[in-house]
Amino acid sequence: MHDSLKNAREALRGWFLGPRAENADLLERLVTEALRDHVFWRRNYHPEDGFTIREVDKRTPGYEEAVSTLTQELMGLLAELKRGVPFFTGRYKGHMSFEQTIAAQIGYFAAMLYNPNNVAAEGSPVTTGLELQVATQLAEMIGYDSVRAWGHLTSGGTIANFEALWVARNIIYLPLAAAGAAEELDVDLPLKLPTGQTISLREATLWQLVNIRNEDALDLYHDLWNTAPRDAVKRAFHGHSLQTLGYQDYHKRLSKRFGDPLNAAVVMVPATAHYSWAKIARALGIGSNQVVYVRVDERFRMDADWFWRKVQKFSEQKTPILACISVCGTTEESAVDRLDQILAVRDRAERELGVTFHIHSDACYGGYAASLLIAGDGTRRTGKRIRKDIDADFPSDEWVASMQALADADSVTIDPHKLGYTPYPAGAIVYRDRRARELVATDPPYLMPTPGSPSAEDMFLGRFILEGSKPGAAAAAVWLSHKVLPLDERGYGYLISRTMLGARKLHRTLQESDFSPFRVVVLPEPDINIVCYVLTHPALETLHDVNEFNERIYGMMSLSVPGATPAYIITRTRFQTPMYDGAVDPILEELGVCTPAEWAEHPEEGLVVLRSTVMDPFAITLPPAPDHITGFVDELRRVCGAALATR
Amino acid sequence: MHDSLKNAREALRGWFLGPRAENADLLERLVTEALRDHVFWRRNYHPEDGFTIREVDKRTPGYEEAVSTLTQELMGLLAELKRGVPFFTGRYKGHMSFEQTIAAQIGYFAAMLYNPNNVAAEGSPVTTGLELQVATQLAEMIGYDSVRAWGHLTSGGTIANFEALWVARNIIYLPLAAAGAAEELDVDLPLKLPTGQTISLREATLWQLVNIRNEDALDLYHDLWNTAPRDAVKRAFHGHSLQTLGYQDYHKRLSKRFGDPLNAAVVMVPATAHYSWAKIARALGIGSNQVVYVRVDERFRMDADWFWRKVQKFSEQKTPILACISVCGTTEESAVDRLDQILAVRDRAERELGVTFHIHSDACYGGYAASLLIAGDGTRRTGKRIRKDIDADFPSDEWVASMQALADADSVTIDPHKLGYTPYPAGAIVYRDRRARELVATDPPYLMPTPGSPSAEDMFLGRFILEGSKPGAAAAAVWLSHKVLPLDERGYGYLISRTMLGARKLHRTLQESDFSPFRVVVLPEPDINIVCYVLTHPALETLHDVNEFNERIYGMMSLSVPGATPAYIITRTRFQTPMYDGAVDPILEELGVCTPAEWAEHPEEGLVVLRSTVMDPFAITLPPAPDHITGFVDELRRVCGAALATR
Repeated sequence: MHDSLKNAREALRGWFLGPRAENADLLERLVTEALRDHVFWRRNYHPEDGFTIREVDKRTPGYEEAVSTLTQELMGLLAELKRGVPFFTGRYKGHMSFEQTIAAQIGYFAAMLYNPNNVAAEGSPVTTGLELQVATQLAEMIGYDSVRAWGHLTSGGTIANFEALWVARNIIYLPLAAAGAAEELDVDLPLKLPTGQTISLREATLWQLVNIRNEDALDLYHDLWNTAPRDAVKRAFHGHSLQTLGYQDYHKRLSKRFGDPLNAAVVMVPATAHYSWAKIARALGIGSNQVVYVRVDERFRMDADWFWRKVQKFSEQKTPILACISVCGTTEESAVDRLDQILAVRDRAERELGVTFHIHSDACYGGYAASLLIAGDGTRRTGKRIRKDIDADFPSDEWVASMQALADADSVTIDPHKLGYTPYPAGAIVYRDRRARELVATDPPYLMPTPGSPSAEDMFLGRFILEGSKPGAAAAAVWLSHKVLPLDERGYGYLISRTMLGARKLHRTLQESDFSPFRVVVLPEPDINIVCYVLTHPALETLHDVNEFNERIYGMMSLSVPGATPAYIITRTRFQTPMYDGAVDPILEELGVCTPAEWAEHPEEGLVVLRSTVMDPFAITLPPAPDHITGFVDELRRVCGAALATR
Repeated sequence: MHDSLKNAREALRGWFLGPRAENADLLERLVTEALRDHVFWRRNYHPEDGFTIREVDKRTPGYEEAVSTLTQELMGLLAELKRGVPFFTGRYKGHMSFEQTIAAQIGYFAAMLYNPNNVAAEGSPVTTGLELQVATQLAEMIGYDSVRAWGHLTSGGTIANFEALWVARNIIYLPLAAAGAAEELDVDLPLKLPTGQTISLREATLWQLVNIRNEDALDLYHDLWNTAPRDAVKRAFHGHSLQTLGYQDYHKRLSKRFGDPLNAAVVMVPATAHYSWAKIARALGIGSNQVVYVRVDERFRMDADWFWRKVQKFSEQKTPILACISVCGTTEESAVDRLDQILAVRDRAERELGVTFHIHSDACYGGYAASLLIAGDGTRRTGKRIRKDIDADFPSDEWVASMQALADADSVTIDPHKLGYTPYPAGAIVYRDRRARELVATDPPYLMPTPGSPSAEDMFLGRFILEGSKPGAAAAAVWLSHKVLPLDERGYGYLISRTMLGARKLHRTLQESDFSPFRVVVLPEPDINIVCYVLTHPALETLHDVNEFNERIYGMMSLSVPGATPAYIITRTRFQTPMYDGAVDPILEELGVCTPAEWAEHPEEGLVVLRSTVMDPFAITLPPAPDHITGFVDELRRVCGAALATR
């Protein structure tokens, strides 16, 4: 066995509190240590101040009542919390939730006692630094040049993705604003087109201006600042930017200048993209109509050929593409888009059509899986070497290529609170080119960095992000977790590979098990660790019957029904037309109750699919862990019978 | 002494860990209790599963290394954290930061062990309920009808305010979308104008359609659903809503239908509003140019006369007012807008001009101060009674009227992580009319509530909010804190009144102290608890000199300079033109180094103002607490001398 694999296998048992709280003594020791350490800081801080709360004060009726209420209500809360979801056990096979690493839990708790606010280092001299370190680690994990890149934590994936699209919008309209400003300042600048050709900014057409590569747009922006005094440039640029004008006036302006308002810019997302993308587009004022769903293949990955044809079509219509969102780990199926192929489509569009766009990878779910690619010495592993090292028949070379391609995305979002196994709230975004943040920067009157202090600008996160106040504790949690579980084969790489192995074993076991008289239709092998399946029975003759049957199974294997105490917990989703057109064809065919055409005719029906995320790294063997795969399949078989009987 | 006051005064000493961690034993007992309670839940969950981590596994080199790394790195982190800000002591007089209530800390920690995700009750059966309870409590505190109202927690004030403006935008354009949909469905509906008159929707002009009162717009929306089958209405409505179309296509559509695109809608905010409002307007696509800053008076409150004149002007220009943001507790000065007067302006605009708009109160900072108005029996106290009960010469009747007026705002944001003394992240938003949330609702494919389960819709927060995954622990923290400190005179009301008393004492002490040869110019008495002041000396002859001098004082009384160990910590802000035009006049006059006109001519200079937030409820009296007001003033005097000497 590979040495670091052996080591990680042993270490894994120390990373979590454990399904039976086997590491309770460790966690309690560290929690107590952190608490007392904080207590003694306070106790020794300006001892000349004396005590504000005396022992005698603790004997007053009001004090005693306050403490009684607190203790009593806490007991009540603790009891209530047990009606919650037992994420910590392998019996939970539902959403992408598990327990957190001890490191993350204790890091969060320790820092929470100090309650730093990472909006600016003035309120978080320590944890703002940790946040920037964490962002750098994530940037390096996906292959970004960490000097050029920049990133930060967010409250979650939605806000991180929102920010990505907000920044992308500012970049796509940046050359247009620069052109307006240059005209006003009476200067000209060279403009590099995606075809490689360089033209004069003054002569650029509207269409050319919205088709400039990210880095060229940012170069142009920086060139602009050298053409005139800072204040003049600032005024001129802001006078032409969408950020300042807003959509309404911006388009009046464009109509006036170019004789024709621009077509509404579109955002392309795979049909499997998280529902929040439509929400984000609506909030940004882009509109959900402008979200174009790209067909996915039978592995739920964006169909690159379909995508190319769509890009061609938009090019013909002169519809700007604001951004293309590629997903690394869909929330429903954990599918990993062939980002390498998406990037190739953009290369081709630049060369052949003179069209370009921002490529963002929504790796909120799957991003941490990039740690599989990194060896303990920091070098990158090939697919072949990973397969050998972890002694498995995955990941495929294609999967590795998709992950490697993250390095070429313009921005990537990665949630530590998903496959990073840290507590909520912890999302993250990284930009390949740190200059992107300048386009959304604001200047609050307070929280001004002290001039001349080291990296003052970097320490003031609030200027460059959507959110304001934010917990420094989240940064400490992620930071400490990365210390204990490095972002490579020894740490997260090992952890995630175990869950992928677990998911594969569940997938195989489902396929090979005899469910008769029931039949299980298992969806394709997942790219990470979500296994989807549909149960059926000869008596179920319509899709509606099948859906209802699967809903009933879900009801019997979830906590959603009050009072239920399921032995195993799963979840479910509903595949809908037109998003899943094509992708569901093989499933429908196997189910044999309706054709894809019939399915598409009843959009309200959809296809109910049962879903099991394997977050549990102990899912496969490592004796004496219980075999929750066989146990689950047995239980599922039993539930099928019960679900049919109660029909 | 009023009984509940005496009780609260004693209870106060049990609410916090204490400046010298006097309540360490209490916090440690509860933390250990919560931890062990959780541990034993796991230990007794399906004991037949056996143990995944054996004692023998803990003796392997890999395990030991993992635990060593964790322990070592945690020790490092704990040491680092002490370079952080000592928010817990009265010596910290900077930002709106203090320690958190023990209840909030323990509530957060206890729930964090379960890591519930409040995006949907499926992952948080308990804490989603707590979040809704907390929102109801906040709604009731500000006087909303809690059956009609709705609210939830957010990651912070920026996201809460973002959501408020997003919803306001959907409401202002709602009648327009309804009119389009009705035309398409070939139906007509009555439309109630703000003047009281009712007309036919079909005959409404563009201007009338964007001037419909919130509840009338929502009534119209609900009426629309009864005119045709649900699917048909949905299709028709979405086909005409900004959410779907996006700004670009929306305005093309309007131009076509009404022959004239609408003027860009404006958002009115007081000049003192938080910097994030411009950021929010940019992100929403509204544009920062559309943010209209309303002049503030010398108490930094929105000038209602100026506001009325501006409303008249916009009415003449046919510029729609998307929303007016009133601030309850500005972040710089803790000023509380006369919301009652703002509401009166809207009443008048409705009557006289037929113009209306959404009124949002940004009470992120000051919202909890509304708890002062509520007696222990739930009745509302008059200003006179509060003054008598707390034995002070405040709050004024005007202040009470401003707070009472929150009940009539369309939406209010209130951050528990500010004056609620709970850990980050905890912002909140409440809407007066719960139907508002339907305008931003989305339907994710997974996380579907189980049909028929009680209040299924309410338990699925993710549908109605901007964010997705969010910590249930934050809800538990706020919930437990509200249990121990009720939102009335016995709890938060008392706590906040103590900090207001402390701020007043600081204000008075600064005014009365002899700083000669220095002179302190103290800004007006704060509406809540932020005291602002400027130091000067006869040798400082220009505003630049004065600003630099105050910056130097700040540098000597902050942790921003590496290695500094200031005895007291303050912060500072910079008042800028044109936002502070007028409001700064008395300050400039007292300083006597330049006229307001000269000040306005040098926008880069601004006016540096030192700021001290009194969050510490022990700031005044309650012996034996140290007197950190006299101590601070003495230190400030000393620092003045040192700052002048190093000039």
